[in-house]
Amino acid sequence: MGSLPLDLPMKPLDPHAIAGDSQAILDFLAEYYRDVDKFPVRAADMEPGRVRKLLPEAAPEHGEPMEHILEDVRRDILPGLTHWQSPRFFAFFPMNASSAGLAGEMLSVGLNVVPFVWAASPAAAELESVVVDWMARLFGLPRRFLFSGGGGGVLQGSTCEAVVCTLAAARDGALGRLGHEAIARLVVYASDQTHATFQKGARLVGIPPSNFRVIKTSAASGYGLTAEAVRAAVDRDVGLGLVPLYLCATVGTTGLGAVDPVREIGEEARRHGMWVHLDAAYAGSAAICPEFQDYLDGAELADSVSMNPHKWFLTNMDCCCLWVARPRDLISALSTDPEYLKNVGAEDGGAGTPAAVDYKDWQISMTRRFRAIKLWVILRRYGAAGMRAHIRRHVAAAKWFEQRVAADERFEVVAPRRFSLVCFRLAPRSGRDDDDDDTNHVNRDLLAAVNASGRAFMTHFVVDGKFVIRLAVGGASTELQHVMEVWDLLQAIAAEVLHRHSTIQRNEL
Amino acid sequence: MGSLPLDLPMKPLDPHAIAGDSQAILDFLAEYYRDVDKFPVRAADMEPGRVRKLLPEAAPEHGEPMEHILEDVRRDILPGLTHWQSPRFFAFFPMNASSAGLAGEMLSVGLNVVPFVWAASPAAAELESVVVDWMARLFGLPRRFLFSGGGGGVLQGSTCEAVVCTLAAARDGALGRLGHEAIARLVVYASDQTHATFQKGARLVGIPPSNFRVIKTSAASGYGLTAEAVRAAVDRDVGLGLVPLYLCATVGTTGLGAVDPVREIGEEARRHGMWVHLDAAYAGSAAICPEFQDYLDGAELADSVSMNPHKWFLTNMDCCCLWVARPRDLISALSTDPEYLKNVGAEDGGAGTPAAVDYKDWQISMTRRFRAIKLWVILRRYGAAGMRAHIRRHVAAAKWFEQRVAADERFEVVAPRRFSLVCFRLAPRSGRDDDDDDTNHVNRDLLAAVNASGRAFMTHFVVDGKFVIRLAVGGASTELQHVMEVWDLLQAIAAEVLHRHSTIQRNEL
Repeated sequence: MGSLPLDLPMKPLDPHAIAGDSQAILDFLAEYYRDVDKFPVRAADMEPGRVRKLLPEAAPEHGEPMEHILEDVRRDILPGLTHWQSPRFFAFFPMNASSAGLAGEMLSVGLNVVPFVWAASPAAAELESVVVDWMARLFGLPRRFLFSGGGGGVLQGSTCEAVVCTLAAARDGALGRLGHEAIARLVVYASDQTHATFQKGARLVGIPPSNFRVIKTSAASGYGLTAEAVRAAVDRDVGLGLVPLYLCATVGTTGLGAVDPVREIGEEARRHGMWVHLDAAYAGSAAICPEFQDYLDGAELADSVSMNPHKWFLTNMDCCCLWVARPRDLISALSTDPEYLKNVGAEDGGAGTPAAVDYKDWQISMTRRFRAIKLWVILRRYGAAGMRAHIRRHVAAAKWFEQRVAADERFEVVAPRRFSLVCFRLAPRSGRDDDDDDTNHVNRDLLAAVNASGRAFMTHFVVDGKFVIRLAVGGASTELQHVMEVWDLLQAIAAEVLHRHSTIQRNEL
Repeated sequence: MGSLPLDLPMKPLDPHAIAGDSQAILDFLAEYYRDVDKFPVRAADMEPGRVRKLLPEAAPEHGEPMEHILEDVRRDILPGLTHWQSPRFFAFFPMNASSAGLAGEMLSVGLNVVPFVWAASPAAAELESVVVDWMARLFGLPRRFLFSGGGGGVLQGSTCEAVVCTLAAARDGALGRLGHEAIARLVVYASDQTHATFQKGARLVGIPPSNFRVIKTSAASGYGLTAEAVRAAVDRDVGLGLVPLYLCATVGTTGLGAVDPVREIGEEARRHGMWVHLDAAYAGSAAICPEFQDYLDGAELADSVSMNPHKWFLTNMDCCCLWVARPRDLISALSTDPEYLKNVGAEDGGAGTPAAVDYKDWQISMTRRFRAIKLWVILRRYGAAGMRAHIRRHVAAAKWFEQRVAADERFEVVAPRRFSLVCFRLAPRSGRDDDDDDTNHVNRDLLAAVNASGRAFMTHFVVDGKFVIRLAVGGASTELQHVMEVWDLLQAIAAEVLHRHSTIQRNEL
């Protein structure tokens, strides 16, 4: 190896170079996954600037062997990472990886074709439209989201991209009728449990931030929206001369895993001609199991649906499925037609026929990766049965944990578990509900101590003033055993924390 | 292998599963790159729907061995791909791949961490800020775009994302002063050579499409903008009560590789307080060579700069560097602060200090991949010297081709070559410039025949009514030999096409 001699022409795609560099990474990754359970889950060294100080100020002048680079990854980078693929990662939502996901991504990155228009790699564009149809069928989505049903899907990088695209489509539909000045009167609706991505997206497409409505939810509806609450908010805005544009319904909210009743609020939104987006970023994966498909009831009232295979569907980053009922709306808002794209084949390719999709007009960017082959490899490698088994073992593990929490009088379950997310806390010690400050303090300490142990990583949420600990089960290598161990860990640390707090309280008396 | 038994728990991250699935892909890719030159460069079978017909309507119920899947890739997918990594791919712009790029992406996808906030993987966030600083130094960007100079950079997926983010930042700055209703008065300026991504981006962020100004360029300025033309357009809009918001300056336009004079038009834009974005998506890579850095003269007048390592910098898809002079402007437009992100470490992480960047506030999406490690591996593996050699061999090959075209009286060079893109055509046969219909017809036939041969793939552009053929040199494995061969091919096919056209003309007389 050694540094590349300057007088030797580089052969960056030489099969031997590919084999050599890639093999070094494969060996590294095999070692990483053998050891990942030994790392503290959350980055142990949290000093800002630590990694920056370790690295030189400028890029090297000469090339280096891959082995040197990987030594630096081991020494400088790994200790500063939070290990999202640890089986003890229960924070945020899972971000799955798998051998098939890595393999599929290697194929995508290795072939490195760019299916931005159909003609630029027909098989890649068609594989994408096939794979999103497969996904829609697996989740039991209504026919209107299949290409054969007049709709269709696209693979994007994130929910936020999907939200921006659908918001732009809804907005341009409204502005087409009302004129551009009406942009200041358009209103977007979400709940106080909806992901912040919708607020960000609405602002990005030019909706005034003051026209983003956050509708309050409560324990009574399991923190889901109700038709009454939506109606009240919309009626108020209509009375003010504003224009209801877009409603987000979430199946499986980020904080608590709550579910908005899609049919109920969808009907309400329809009455006002609003665009309804169904966000099932995390929980959508569960719909591969028939026992979870009821949560998508009413999906035929939605104009668009999205879910992220990169969360709980064994798909390495990144991959978001977006389906729309009327592709034309999306394309009207997002298409461009410059001369340098009017190339051989683009004309004869029959754009407009369902078989020849120019996906650049279904997304924000012109450029795009061949994500379809990744998702296709995963579905082929594991099959629908394998994916259902993957989902069900996590749901079962979460259920086990929820039962333990409910059975331990020191703890309480704060919101109903619907999928694989359990929201719990140490219960108020006085038995009253109104000593939240104290209870929150104890729970904050509990979570901090668990995370500091390095043996698990969880994150929190706040609802009705309560600090809630979230156990999000779903890591690709997380099994029941890991959930059992985290329950042991929680009990042990809870005992210490409760003891410490009791001592402080006694001393304060 | 065989299908996964349902009663056996899946181990999707088992080191043996990773090794097995990945090795199959590595073997496949080694074979692919050994053979890539044998495939027709452009997909041979252009029948829409061909691939869709080959694939089943639904995902398989049971998993399959990777070998079966790869057999299907060989049989059903490869013949329908355009081979962007063929050394004979001269279309659009190059989209580089390399052994180090694949290795870096494998690391990124294999570790699969999500540095959306600093605390979610500190080393990943810090490596990103180090790597964008390295890149800025390599390209000789002004200090104001370095973190140490008060600015900073981020890795995104595409120029369009970078454009949307900077447009949103500029827009929100203006609306903060003028009120939201003023959105209908904001104007964005570009040239008739600017990438369509700016028009799409401006529309996405809510600028009225009628407020996107396309300023005409001409051969006299090498198809670059002039300060006079910008001034005239801006003065007209100011006179109408509109608000000049944003100007795009391009170094290396998509159609012709033209260069806008950044200093000249930057000064003009500054006079009106406009945001100036410098788009060097393709040609920015050349600035790693000192002899090309002059094209970036005036960059200190820009508010933001972007370039795409995934084009000509040996970086597999996707990677776009965006630098801004005032991160605060970007963060103001793009930040969100929901409770579920206020997690352990996020508070103590010292957000706001340059060392602890929450990159979710520097981009459209919340989620993000660990792209930094890919670019870092590439810079380490090849070194600055290696990258300069990579750029220079393509520039030399393009120069060689340009000289041949200029020396052959049947051909002409249509626009000056600045980097590695040569724009040429068969010259008007009458010697007059005004028989463009005939000349365009001949050139269309020439390009179609070259592409149909499968031995090269080029695309076209139209400027001043002329149909121009573009030879974009820059493929990772493209060497002088391939450019020589495409010149031979062009000469041979040109002789046939010219003969055929002469015969038709004679028959028509």
